[in-house]
Amino acid sequence: MERPSLRAALAGARPLRVGWSCLPDPLAAEIMVRAGFEAVLLDLQHGVIDMGVAPAMLAAVRAAGGHALARIPVGEYQSASRLLDWGAEMVVAPMIETADDARAFAAFMKYPPDGQRSYGPARAVQLSGLSADAYRTSANGSTLAVVMIETRAALANLDAILAVPGIDGVFVGPYDLSIALSPDGEPGLDRSDTIAAMERVVRQAKAAGKVCGAFGANAALVRRYLGLGFTFATLSTDMDLLAVATRAAIAEVEG
Amino acid sequence: MERPSLRAALAGARPLRVGWSCLPDPLAAEIMVRAGFEAVLLDLQHGVIDMGVAPAMLAAVRAAGGHALARIPVGEYQSASRLLDWGAEMVVAPMIETADDARAFAAFMKYPPDGQRSYGPARAVQLSGLSADAYRTSANGSTLAVVMIETRAALANLDAILAVPGIDGVFVGPYDLSIALSPDGEPGLDRSDTIAAMERVVRQAKAAGKVCGAFGANAALVRRYLGLGFTFATLSTDMDLLAVATRAAIAEVEG
Amino acid sequence: MERPSLRAALAGARPLRVGWSCLPDPLAAEIMVRAGFEAVLLDLQHGVIDMGVAPAMLAAVRAAGGHALARIPVGEYQSASRLLDWGAEMVVAPMIETADDARAFAAFMKYPPDGQRSYGPARAVQLSGLSADAYRTSANGSTLAVVMIETRAALANLDAILAVPGIDGVFVGPYDLSIALSPDGEPGLDRSDTIAAMERVVRQAKAAGKVCGAFGANAALVRRYLGLGFTFATLSTDMDLLAVATRAAIAEVEG
Amino acid sequence: MERPSLRAALAGARPLRVGWSCLPDPLAAEIMVRAGFEAVLLDLQHGVIDMGVAPAMLAAVRAAGGHALARIPVGEYQSASRLLDWGAEMVVAPMIETADDARAFAAFMKYPPDGQRSYGPARAVQLSGLSADAYRTSANGSTLAVVMIETRAALANLDAILAVPGIDGVFVGPYDLSIALSPDGEPGLDRSDTIAAMERVVRQAKAAGKVCGAFGANAALVRRYLGLGFTFATLSTDMDLLAVATRAAIAEVEG
Amino acid sequence: MERPSLRAALAGARPLRVGWSCLPDPLAAEIMVRAGFEAVLLDLQHGVIDMGVAPAMLAAVRAAGGHALARIPVGEYQSASRLLDWGAEMVVAPMIETADDARAFAAFMKYPPDGQRSYGPARAVQLSGLSADAYRTSANGSTLAVVMIETRAALANLDAILAVPGIDGVFVGPYDLSIALSPDGEPGLDRSDTIAAMERVVRQAKAAGKVCGAFGANAALVRRYLGLGFTFATLSTDMDLLAVATRAAIAEVEG
Amino acid sequence: MERPSLRAALAGARPLRVGWSCLPDPLAAEIMVRAGFEAVLLDLQHGVIDMGVAPAMLAAVRAAGGHALARIPVGEYQSASRLLDWGAEMVVAPMIETADDARAFAAFMKYPPDGQRSYGPARAVQLSGLSADAYRTSANGSTLAVVMIETRAALANLDAILAVPGIDGVFVGPYDLSIALSPDGEPGLDRSDTIAAMERVVRQAKAAGKVCGAFGANAALVRRYLGLGFTFATLSTDMDLLAVATRAAIAEVEG
Ligand SMILES: [Mg+2]
Ligand SMILES: [Mg+2]
Ligand SMILES: [Mg+2]
Ligand SMILES: [Mg+2]
Ligand SMILES: [Mg+2]
Ligand SMILES: [Mg+2]
Repeated sequence: MERPSLRAALAGARPLRVGWSCLPDPLAAEIMVRAGFEAVLLDLQHGVIDMGVAPAMLAAVRAAGGHALARIPVGEYQSASRLLDWGAEMVVAPMIETADDARAFAAFMKYPPDGQRSYGPARAVQLSGLSADAYRTSANGSTLAVVMIETRAALANLDAILAVPGIDGVFVGPYDLSIALSPDGEPGLDRSDTIAAMERVVRQAKAAGKVCGAFGANAALVRRYLGLGFTFATLSTDMDLLAVATRAAIAEVEG
Repeated sequence: MERPSLRAALAGARPLRVGWSCLPDPLAAEIMVRAGFEAVLLDLQHGVIDMGVAPAMLAAVRAAGGHALARIPVGEYQSASRLLDWGAEMVVAPMIETADDARAFAAFMKYPPDGQRSYGPARAVQLSGLSADAYRTSANGSTLAVVMIETRAALANLDAILAVPGIDGVFVGPYDLSIALSPDGEPGLDRSDTIAAMERVVRQAKAAGKVCGAFGANAALVRRYLGLGFTFATLSTDMDLLAVATRAAIAEVEG
Repeated sequence: MERPSLRAALAGARPLRVGWSCLPDPLAAEIMVRAGFEAVLLDLQHGVIDMGVAPAMLAAVRAAGGHALARIPVGEYQSASRLLDWGAEMVVAPMIETADDARAFAAFMKYPPDGQRSYGPARAVQLSGLSADAYRTSANGSTLAVVMIETRAALANLDAILAVPGIDGVFVGPYDLSIALSPDGEPGLDRSDTIAAMERVVRQAKAAGKVCGAFGANAALVRRYLGLGFTFATLSTDMDLLAVATRAAIAEVEG
Repeated sequence: MERPSLRAALAGARPLRVGWSCLPDPLAAEIMVRAGFEAVLLDLQHGVIDMGVAPAMLAAVRAAGGHALARIPVGEYQSASRLLDWGAEMVVAPMIETADDARAFAAFMKYPPDGQRSYGPARAVQLSGLSADAYRTSANGSTLAVVMIETRAALANLDAILAVPGIDGVFVGPYDLSIALSPDGEPGLDRSDTIAAMERVVRQAKAAGKVCGAFGANAALVRRYLGLGFTFATLSTDMDLLAVATRAAIAEVEG
Repeated sequence: MERPSLRAALAGARPLRVGWSCLPDPLAAEIMVRAGFEAVLLDLQHGVIDMGVAPAMLAAVRAAGGHALARIPVGEYQSASRLLDWGAEMVVAPMIETADDARAFAAFMKYPPDGQRSYGPARAVQLSGLSADAYRTSANGSTLAVVMIETRAALANLDAILAVPGIDGVFVGPYDLSIALSPDGEPGLDRSDTIAAMERVVRQAKAAGKVCGAFGANAALVRRYLGLGFTFATLSTDMDLLAVATRAAIAEVEG
Repeated sequence: MERPSLRAALAGARPLRVGWSCLPDPLAAEIMVRAGFEAVLLDLQHGVIDMGVAPAMLAAVRAAGGHALARIPVGEYQSASRLLDWGAEMVVAPMIETADDARAFAAFMKYPPDGQRSYGPARAVQLSGLSADAYRTSANGSTLAVVMIETRAALANLDAILAVPGIDGVFVGPYDLSIALSPDGEPGLDRSDTIAAMERVVRQAKAAGKVCGAFGANAALVRRYLGLGFTFATLSTDMDLLAVATRAAIAEVEG
């Protein structure tokens, strides 16, 4: 109830611990919160999660005291509104390349006059503990619209994108970015051009006063990205954590 | 297709790597197989798994090349037949205390004349790759009926239980066993009476030529139980693995 | 079988009793029909209903003798075709603002030559009791494409929207409309500008010979909207009915 | 977290407000809690709820701050253990007729030495906020085993049933009871023999220091049963509440 | 609504066309009704159907105008009551061997004074179109308790089983029966002892005035069993029909 | 593992046997593969299949040794990427009318530099048996982007559509095509204009070196379409196969 808002949590002294859900299982997401993640992002772009299971997952994450985030499929902005209606506190939109893309997304994320989000947040009101009026008047400020920067076009248009009203932050997908930056070569997270681009995103995002996050496939990458100045970096995925733990446990037995 | 039978795998030079599923998610079970478990047990006694999700989980484990095991709720022997029908290769029955209990369970696990398992294995035939006839004539031998030894009564009746036709092995639940052995004291897996009882189970099971397994909550316990001579020890649970991996990854970031 | 078509029912002497489903539960929707609603709308925009559960809900409503309606997410017109294919008799499209929007929606709602709805209504044919040919030749006439009027742009373009071939009616979302009409003030269903706008929608829709409906959050609002001349007004939601009935029953006990 | 235990809540100054779930929908159960029920019972005997959906429903009720209760199918005592494992705080067993029945049920509800509940409460531990040890040592006291008294045999054996260790209370099913008491006549909740039998249950239960509850189909019956001295009476069902509210709302419109 | 009762339909001039569901899919069951089956049996013993999906399947079969039957797992009589509560019109209990078995089953199938079925048929009342009172007073007569005769013991006890009050009919599982009759040889549906046993079941059931059915894996077997005098024989399974149709269609293409 | 790729299979000496799934049931799809289909297409446009059940269906088809195909709703190209991520080997996009449509679709089907498919194929990598790198570098070549040609505009733009990089083939929907070609008359698969248009599609597709397929509602149509030169024709649907087999079996009984 009295927990800090996601926005406040992101502004805390320590980077927020954010997990990543690909499994369509509310209990798996909840377990990640109970084990230490302060927020969990449901990946509806690349994960095995759809709009049918998302409401239960959002509720499970919040019931365990976590912040509930979600990533939508490319361009499916109407789903951003629905995920907010079901209790998501941040929605991440992949493959944003232009200010127009960002505006289209923001329109679905913010109530008028900032955007055109349609009103009907019965479920989010329940989960928020707020009155309907308090939810409506605070939602534009308390929920975050975050755009992914992961192509050459996005880098080129970054300042314009950051200037779009209603956009609260950016998020880097290092894999797609490195693929975009190495059309003829071998993509890689360690390539200097990938890292340089990520530094540039941090610099511009911070200059614009925006949150900036990155997908971190493992702890080493999260440390690197936090070192680059990202506000937060998501840490691994449920699928990878389960596989890593399986391998580690077997190795410990057979060591 | 050509993979060894579960029985053969249990008789191999190295203890079989067996995982434990509590999450009602076929994909989570499958991931554990892909990451190294050669078999996964679905826990319908204490896990969050029911007869509705079990068929998809059994199929997922087998599709990934793993052996599919299941534990039924206490006394729900009819579910043992159904799990076999859906492709389980071993069923574990908890809280078996007498030869009568074991006989009742075996009756549901074996076709006549060994038992009274009713015929109707359409799904198991599909998953086995065998003809219906070959499945029917081989099933009594290739699938395992395993009883849990976890009470004082069970220990007292162990030889009689082991002598029940159709019982292929025993499995120890160390928590319940230690609780049973310490009515007035503090139960514990490290208590000498718990360990002594487990050694006795191994000794008697081996003398009877039966498989003997144990639930191992973590790698150290699995090593201990294998050291006691158990044929196999299951290793942790999906819920614990996910939580352990979450904590480890966060610690590695914040280290 | 012999029940009147939805179009005929809407033209009846008494406004059709229409309920509103937000819960992803076919049985809850069915119960509302059994208790008196002659039609139920599945809300895929703001409700907790997705394309996975919609087919069973449409079938449940129709099996109980009700008319099955659905509202799609903003701009997700392809889902309108699918809902028709699964047996929806009316689809409501939110946030229609221009004749172009309406045309895009109508294209997914009507078979050629009126639109571009693709052919494949196996499920709807089953539920209709018609032959496939009879379904195909009657569907454009018997199913209704209804657009929501809930922004300033929509009001400004109302006549053009109403003139789009294939559009069978309009539906007002009073909350969004009042928010749109009060950018600097406090939105409210009782505001005179909101009510005036609704009257205007009724007037123009009737002049164009179209059905006009409104979302009525409770009985008082439904009475008001019917008083304004709306063809029908949906009455509350399943979530609200359950909450209202809970509070009433507790109050009656503790009175 | 700091909410009183179910046992404490039942001992409060005011009878606990207890709702009844028949719909297989976690959100419907949650809404009943948010609307005022302090506890909700999941009916796995006569409701449309099974062991597959129960875990999510138990979690939803508790996440909303309610106490989670469940009724098992007749004689399916192994499911009582599983529901406890998933977070149920009271389990109600229907059609208990003898002390032996009660003992069999209690054995599945209480850890040794009081019973034979098998250990494995991972999910309940998560939901309780307790450590595993604290859960284990407190569970026998904090969760309630409640038996239904609804036949002539049960009435005849009531004192013996109440004397069974581990039985925490009784619950009357007035429909079954009235049917049992009127073999040749017309059953009815208003029959004096039905009411007299219920009074007797209250008297004996209270003399034995046990909780006593009753199923109350509507507010009037709940008032009656509380007047008879029952500790609590469950109030209507989700299915009935939804139907009643539908009829009331339509009537209010059409007045 | 006006359709004949299942009992009347079974007494018709022509044997009832009865399909068999193993797939956990309400739509597949419904399609079988639309294509010609007048009744469909849900197989919860050997099919991939559990108590979670059964309610939707029962409703789907009835919505399409079919009679809804179900087979329970061995000995799981409490599920028989629940299936009746959800709308099943016949429940088939496998592996009944003695009059005691039959009595235990009948107790769960019939309201007092005939049995001990507990009262709570809200869903069945909805599907029946009857008032609650009319359902209660007619249910013992209109729903059928059918026991399977498929072992030597069952044959030996057949007259005693048939004499159990509340037992409405018998059903033969030819596979299990042939296995039981050929302990040392090769079981087979064509064995003269299997056929002779089936004739005996027909003779004794008819003498007792009971319905008698048999599982017919294909049309030829159904013809044979109807020729033997069975009241009805179920025809194939959904799984087999789909496989047979697939093979036939491919063969027709490649002819 | 060693099975030929879908592309290789399509280039084989004999047309690939392709089934069509409309039922939301992984087991039904799997059964079609086991009965002879070498590939099964999941129809998310007109079938009762959504993004929630698709992952399990794709996995079931592949586990049984089949190739997994899918058709998306009109214009929902983001779902094409997700289906690839979950293991689809071909995605069919309906109602493609222009080269721009085709380009938009191809962008979601191919990784850079050929398109803009975003990277995140964890599930597809698991199902492929490849390393992540091998999957990434081979996916553009091994998975097929297939566009439907079923309108006059599509026919007019066919060469331009076929010339779009990344488009691997075309697929004809004969129903929509015949409706499009007979605006004033009666559509029909036997109309000479329909057949002529299909021949033209084959001719142009082959000239462009592309795969060409067609929907074949029954064996006779499949034979016709293969005779016209189509690379493959899908054969019936699961719903139709089940209905056809039901009718045939009943007819065989009642002869
Ligand atoms: Mg990306
Ligand atoms: Mg145990
Ligand atoms: Mg609106
Ligand atoms: Mg009762
Ligand atoms: Mg049988
Ligand atoms: Mg088409």
